[in-house]
Amino acid sequence: MAAIILASLDIGGSKMAASIANDNGPLARVVQATVKTGAADAIGQQALRLIAIACAEAGVPPASISRVGVSSCGPFAFEQQALGLVAPNLCGGIIRGDTYNDDLPNDWTFIPLEAVLRSQFAEVVIDNDCVAALTAERCFGAAQQEPDSVYVTWSTGIGFGLCVDGHILRGKHGNAGHAGHMVLDETSDAVCGCGNRGDLEALVSGRNLQKRYGRSAADIFAAAVTGDTISMGIVQEAARWLGRGLYNLASALDTRCFLIGGSVWRHHAGLLMPLLESEMQSQFPALTEGVRIMGAELDELVTDIGAFALVMPAEWMPDWRIRKPWNGLRTTSLNEAG
Amino acid sequence: MAAIILASLDIGGSKMAASIANDNGPLARVVQATVKTGAADAIGQQALRLIAIACAEAGVPPASISRVGVSSCGPFAFEQQALGLVAPNLCGGIIRGDTYNDDLPNDWTFIPLEAVLRSQFAEVVIDNDCVAALTAERCFGAAQQEPDSVYVTWSTGIGFGLCVDGHILRGKHGNAGHAGHMVLDETSDAVCGCGNRGDLEALVSGRNLQKRYGRSAADIFAAAVTGDTISMGIVQEAARWLGRGLYNLASALDTRCFLIGGSVWRHHAGLLMPLLESEMQSQFPALTEGVRIMGAELDELVTDIGAFALVMPAEWMPDWRIRKPWNGLRTTSLNEAG
Repeated sequence: MAAIILASLDIGGSKMAASIANDNGPLARVVQATVKTGAADAIGQQALRLIAIACAEAGVPPASISRVGVSSCGPFAFEQQALGLVAPNLCGGIIRGDTYNDDLPNDWTFIPLEAVLRSQFAEVVIDNDCVAALTAERCFGAAQQEPDSVYVTWSTGIGFGLCVDGHILRGKHGNAGHAGHMVLDETSDAVCGCGNRGDLEALVSGRNLQKRYGRSAADIFAAAVTGDTISMGIVQEAARWLGRGLYNLASALDTRCFLIGGSVWRHHAGLLMPLLESEMQSQFPALTEGVRIMGAELDELVTDIGAFALVMPAEWMPDWRIRKPWNGLRTTSLNEAG
Repeated sequence: MAAIILASLDIGGSKMAASIANDNGPLARVVQATVKTGAADAIGQQALRLIAIACAEAGVPPASISRVGVSSCGPFAFEQQALGLVAPNLCGGIIRGDTYNDDLPNDWTFIPLEAVLRSQFAEVVIDNDCVAALTAERCFGAAQQEPDSVYVTWSTGIGFGLCVDGHILRGKHGNAGHAGHMVLDETSDAVCGCGNRGDLEALVSGRNLQKRYGRSAADIFAAAVTGDTISMGIVQEAARWLGRGLYNLASALDTRCFLIGGSVWRHHAGLLMPLLESEMQSQFPALTEGVRIMGAELDELVTDIGAFALVMPAEWMPDWRIRKPWNGLRTTSLNEAG
């Protein structure tokens, strides 16, 4: 019997990663900026290319891949029973007749993903990136003992993976967790790539901070910590809104533990944590007492490991849990997108 | 073997009901305004009295009760491992140093419930009233075939029962579904009994409409349908906020179907339905397409039947599903509270 070899894909609004693993752990990982031009299947074609490159780095032929686990931004929709993406941070065609999506040079309204991947691989499992991340934290990270936990990404977009009573929520189309699109302030001038005014993602995501203030989230946070009061005001307001979103989810789901990850959070956790906690504690004590907010444990690789966890044989897990074989994994960054 | 006899309790912010059933169906039901004065165990003592009266009506001795199912308003908290209520619509002590709770002539901050009921009954199962209602709709009503469904009550308070992937959510303390306390408009002058400003319950619940406008929800709705434009404005705004709450839950949970019940809804469904649908459809189509909003099927008895369903032998269910033996059940209304 041939050894089982897995591929994972992590498709985000800013970057795409492909990794290869066997039972011993991840063997190779390549990353590239996510393609945003060309035909709507450009994302799927880029995914196939990155898997091929990762295979070459790992020294395994693409034909030896047994299963592909995919963690992707969403929401998802289905065309001819095959899953694709209706993702506001990739699809330039979602808001029509508007200049909002100038940073997305395409008119995509649906990105076929499952069909493209299945043209080459028989076993493909696609889940929301935050669902995959939460799966990783449940299997290997900070939520192993916590049945009522929520993973949060604060990155290009805002997304959630929701676990209640030990059950990771999917919903009717696998779109549970898209609470980044909950509307919090319809009077705001912040508009989301999905078209909603004043939803959580509009108010705080990396992409939307850039669009609103003409500076990257990284620049805004860097200025805030060096004493720029305007930038600090933006940071405090964003943290307050994210805290509001966490409270609203806690009131709906009776969550015990929020695990936060994503590029915006990762670099500024120390600044953001007390702001989030303060907003949470300002609401109804019966629903907020004992709620903990903490950083995700698996850090930058959480969605990649989550994608592996979606397709991994259960018997691999105890060993990965102990050895954490992703530590020391080398990532190859490819410059050109496309 | 003695026949199995069940008691159910439905504890709401305005009324309490106790019912008795055997395998053949409900035998008797008594209703009384919920006690709001006296010691904090007054609620539990009233529950024991109502069960005794319902037993007398049904012609069975209280000692013959095998199990008690309880559907109650919440949130819940625990003292010495026993469940009690921290319910904003019953506990006058939750907001301290404030005149908000003038309609609650007590200073309760915790209502012991499980301990009082267990003093008399060995088997007691307590669940949130909307969780019980959703259980009833999943077992016997409109959500039998729908794994991604949410029950909503629009009544004295606002509450939800949440089902995702066929799993009814409980959360760490059984408080999942308290999304009536999600904050939607912190700039509002509407304050909730829980202390939150601008949460969904503050904006639309029957109790809070009464406190804000000095007229009961029934009066406001009656005036609206007979052409009073101010009242119609209040109704439209309330429906818009509830629709916003439903959308926020749909974005978080990928819900297919919302089932609405409760006294405010029940009498005005025709007026409210298009307003809720319009608000839902105004948001991100990828998350709202195919979402259905409909009335709960089991109507006024939904929480009573749900409380029975929490403790009912599974083998009773198919027969109850077919015969709907609660139809024609006589309710005895008791005048005095206490």
